[in-house]
Amino acid sequence: MEGLLIRFRAQSVLATCSHQLSGYVPLRSHHGAPKRGQRLVLSRLFQPQNLREDQVLSLEGKSGDLTCKSQRLMLQVGLIHPASPGCYHLLPYTVRALEKLVRVIDQEMLAIGGQKVNMPSLTPAELWRATGRWDLMGKELLRLRDRHDKEYCLGPTHEEAVTALVATQKTLSYKQLPLLLYQVTRKFRDEPRPRFGLLRGREFYMKDMYTFDSSPEAAQQTYSLVCDAYCSLFDRLGLQFVKVQADVGSIGGTMSHEFQLPVDVGEDRLVVCSSCSFSANMETLGMSQMNCPVCQGPLTETKGIEVGHTFYLGTKYSSIFNAQFTDVHGKAALAEMGCYGLGVTRILAAAIEVLSTEDGIRWPSLIAPYQACLIPPKKGSKEAAAAELLGHLHDHISEALPQLRGEVLVDDRTHLTIGNRLKDAGKLGYPFVIIAGKRALEDPAHLEVWCQNTGEVLFLTKEGVLELLTQVQVV
Amino acid sequence: MEGLLIRFRAQSVLATCSHQLSGYVPLRSHHGAPKRGQRLVLSRLFQPQNLREDQVLSLEGKSGDLTCKSQRLMLQVGLIHPASPGCYHLLPYTVRALEKLVRVIDQEMLAIGGQKVNMPSLTPAELWRATGRWDLMGKELLRLRDRHDKEYCLGPTHEEAVTALVATQKTLSYKQLPLLLYQVTRKFRDEPRPRFGLLRGREFYMKDMYTFDSSPEAAQQTYSLVCDAYCSLFDRLGLQFVKVQADVGSIGGTMSHEFQLPVDVGEDRLVVCSSCSFSANMETLGMSQMNCPVCQGPLTETKGIEVGHTFYLGTKYSSIFNAQFTDVHGKAALAEMGCYGLGVTRILAAAIEVLSTEDGIRWPSLIAPYQACLIPPKKGSKEAAAAELLGHLHDHISEALPQLRGEVLVDDRTHLTIGNRLKDAGKLGYPFVIIAGKRALEDPAHLEVWCQNTGEVLFLTKEGVLELLTQVQVV
Repeated sequence: MEGLLIRFRAQSVLATCSHQLSGYVPLRSHHGAPKRGQRLVLSRLFQPQNLREDQVLSLEGKSGDLTCKSQRLMLQVGLIHPASPGCYHLLPYTVRALEKLVRVIDQEMLAIGGQKVNMPSLTPAELWRATGRWDLMGKELLRLRDRHDKEYCLGPTHEEAVTALVATQKTLSYKQLPLLLYQVTRKFRDEPRPRFGLLRGREFYMKDMYTFDSSPEAAQQTYSLVCDAYCSLFDRLGLQFVKVQADVGSIGGTMSHEFQLPVDVGEDRLVVCSSCSFSANMETLGMSQMNCPVCQGPLTETKGIEVGHTFYLGTKYSSIFNAQFTDVHGKAALAEMGCYGLGVTRILAAAIEVLSTEDGIRWPSLIAPYQACLIPPKKGSKEAAAAELLGHLHDHISEALPQLRGEVLVDDRTHLTIGNRLKDAGKLGYPFVIIAGKRALEDPAHLEVWCQNTGEVLFLTKEGVLELLTQVQVV
Repeated sequence: MEGLLIRFRAQSVLATCSHQLSGYVPLRSHHGAPKRGQRLVLSRLFQPQNLREDQVLSLEGKSGDLTCKSQRLMLQVGLIHPASPGCYHLLPYTVRALEKLVRVIDQEMLAIGGQKVNMPSLTPAELWRATGRWDLMGKELLRLRDRHDKEYCLGPTHEEAVTALVATQKTLSYKQLPLLLYQVTRKFRDEPRPRFGLLRGREFYMKDMYTFDSSPEAAQQTYSLVCDAYCSLFDRLGLQFVKVQADVGSIGGTMSHEFQLPVDVGEDRLVVCSSCSFSANMETLGMSQMNCPVCQGPLTETKGIEVGHTFYLGTKYSSIFNAQFTDVHGKAALAEMGCYGLGVTRILAAAIEVLSTEDGIRWPSLIAPYQACLIPPKKGSKEAAAAELLGHLHDHISEALPQLRGEVLVDDRTHLTIGNRLKDAGKLGYPFVIIAGKRALEDPAHLEVWCQNTGEVLFLTKEGVLELLTQVQVV
C-alpha cells in the first residue's frame, strides 16, 4: 500500500531538477497535469470539511437554517469558505470546476467569433455619470476614491467601459462588424441581502459579452447567434433550461431574454405556456395575466435561477459615447449593440443545486473537478493485496488515456474503511468511483465502479474500466 | 484569394447548428481552438492601432515622452488601451499571451504540489487591522465602505486572508504539511505614480502563493522549492534573470529574494558580485558598500525589473491569526509560513521590454499570442496564384499538427502588399511569418519563412514548413 502514497516534497524536488537537466518538455495540458507515474492523493488536498450542521451554520454566522442545498453542501465538503457576507474563498475543487466551465464558455464564444478581452474592475465615475447609471444604480454600486480623490466604481457590468473603448477606434469599418468582445472577470454588486452561497454573492465571476453591429437586422442576427451559443452551452453541461422573455432593468434596451434553470429555490417567478413556445419572467407580465398573450392558452408557473441574460441595446450606449463605424456608403453611423451575461460562479452553484442529492454533490460531468476517484483497500484488511492492482490501473489510465492525466485522484487514506471513503466520494460527486474490494481478489480481478451521475454500479475487469473511461469527455 | 476569407457569421451559424445536430465533441483545447478547416483571419481582430507617436501620447494624456519601450509598442499595435491612470484594457492578443503565461505558471506550481484557490478582492478591514497593515499601507491601499458602512480594502496581497482561512481548519495535521496554496487574480495598489504601462499599474494580475510548514527547516526546504520553480519558469520563457537578496518591506519576515530581469528601464538598482554568487537589491546594503559582503570582491551595478518576490515569514502571520497544526506529538503548533509573488501582467510587459526591438514586439516563444502568421499574396499581383498553396498549407498544419490549431493567423488583408503586411507582422512579433511570394510559383514551390525570434529567413517547401513547425512548443 505504501507504494500508492506520494511524498510531494521528494517527488517535487525530482521534478524540478529534471526540468533543468532535460529541458522539461511539458504536455499540452490545462492544469499542468501530473506527469506519468505521478499520483494525485486526496490526503494532501486542502479541503476543510464541516460535516455537522451546526458547523456550517456557524461558518455563515447564522442561527437559522441554510435554505439552499448547494450552499450547504459546498460548505460542508470544503468547496467554498465564507470570507465576508456574499464573498467566498473558492477552494481547490471549485477552482478546477470553475476553470473547466470557463473553457467550455470560451469554446462557445470563440465558435461564434467572440474575442476575449479583459477590462479593469476600477471604472471611472465619469463613464457611469455619462449614462446616468452612477445615480440610477444607487447602493448596488460599490464606490471608492483613489489617493487623488478621483471617484471610481467596481464594475458590476461594463457597457460604459466597452463602448468608450470601441468609440476610440476611429477607423472601424462595417467590414469589421459584427464585433463580439467578451471577458470572464470578477464583478462586484453590493447586494442588499447576499444569500444562497455562490447564487447571490457580492463578488462573483461573470462572462459578459458586448456586440457591435452595422444595422438593427444584423444586430438581431448576432442576438440569435449568442442565444444559440448559450443553448449549446447548457446542453453540453446537461442542464435543462428555459429561455424566457425578460425585463430590461437598469441595463436598458428594447428586448431581453433570461436563461433560467427551473428549481424551487429560484428567486425568479416564470410562466411557461404548454400550448405554444411562450415563456416569460412574471415581472414582464401584467399582475393578473393568467393566459398566454400569444395563444391565450393557460400559463404554468415555476421558479427559476437566472444563469444568463441577453439584451438588445440598440444605440442606447453607442449614442452616448459616440461609438461609430463607417458604413458601406462611407458615412459615420452609430453601432447597434447587444450585451450578454452569464453568471459563471452562479452556473456552478445552480448546477449543483439542480443535480445534487440531499447528501451529495453532483456535477455536470464535463466540468467535474476530477473525473474519477480510486479507492484502494483498507490497510491490513483481507483485500489489502488488491492495492497493487489499483496502482497498475492508475498507470494504465494515465498511459492509455492521456486526456485523463490529472483527472484521477487516489483516496490514499487507507486507515479508513472502503465504506467510509465511498461515503466521502459520494459527497464530492466524482463521476466515477473505482474500488478495489473483495472481487478484486478473484481471477480475473473485478473492480467495483460507481457511476455516480447515472447511479449504476458495475463490476469490471481492468480492461473494462479502461473502456468505460475512454468515453469520458474532458475539457 | 476569396477562398481564404472567412465570413464569421455564416460559419458560426453552421457551427452552432452542428452542435445541436451532432452532439459536438470538442477537442481538448484551451482557447476553443477553431475546428479543422476554420481559419482565423487578421482583418476581424479587434486591435486598435495607434502607430503615430502623437496618437500614443494622447492616449496616455501626456505631452512628454513615453520612456518605456514595452508601453509604447503595446499601445501602438493595439495590445493594451488605457482605461484610467495605471489601469489598462487588455486586448485580444494580450489576453491570449496572459492565459498562456498563467498555464505555464500553473504547471510549475502544480509540479511542486501547489493547490489553486481564489480569494475575494474585497478584504474586511478587521483582518488588516489585526496585523497593523491597515495603517502601515497608507495610501497604497484602496479602501471602500459597503452599504452597511463596513470597511474593506481591495487586496494588494493576501497574507491576512489566507492565514485566517487556514486558521479555520482546526484539524490540520503535520501529515498534511507542507500546504502550498496559490491564486492568480487581480490585485490593486494605489501607486503614487503609475507608469510604464503594465510594468507599474494600479490594477494588475499577480500569482501569489502562501505556504504552511511544520518547522523552520521544512519551511526553508519549501522556500527553496518555490525558488527553483521560479527559476524553471523563467528558463522556460527564455528570460535571463538574477535572483537577489531583498528587503522584506511591509510584508515582513526574516528572509527575502527578488527575481529581477536586468534592463535599463528597471526601477530597482541591483549589485552583482562577479567573483562569487552574491547579488542583492542595493536597498538591502549600506549606502557606501562597494565590495561584496561575502568575498570582498568588487560589485557591479545594474538595473532590474522585479518580476518575482519570495519571503520567508516564519510565524509573523500565523501567530496573529492562530494558524495552527497538530504536530507529531499531538500538540498544537504555529505554522511556519512563506509567501511568494509573481507579477503576471508585469512579466508579460517585462518580457516584451527585454526581448523587443525598437520597432517590433518579440515574445517568449512559448507564450506568443499566435505562433504563426500566414501572408497570402496581394490580390491581382503576379503571385496571386500562390494563394491556394497557402490555403493548403493551412489545412495541412491543422491536420498534421493539431496542437497548432488556433495558433495560426491568416493576414487576409490582400488589398495590401506583402511588404506592408510583413512590416505589421514584424511589429506584432509572431515567432513565424510564412509568406507566399515569388518563389511560391517555382516548382517545387517555396515559401518564405521569417523566424522572428532568431532573425533567420528560410525558403522552404510545404513539407519543410511542416517539419519546422513540428518543433514549436505550445502551452
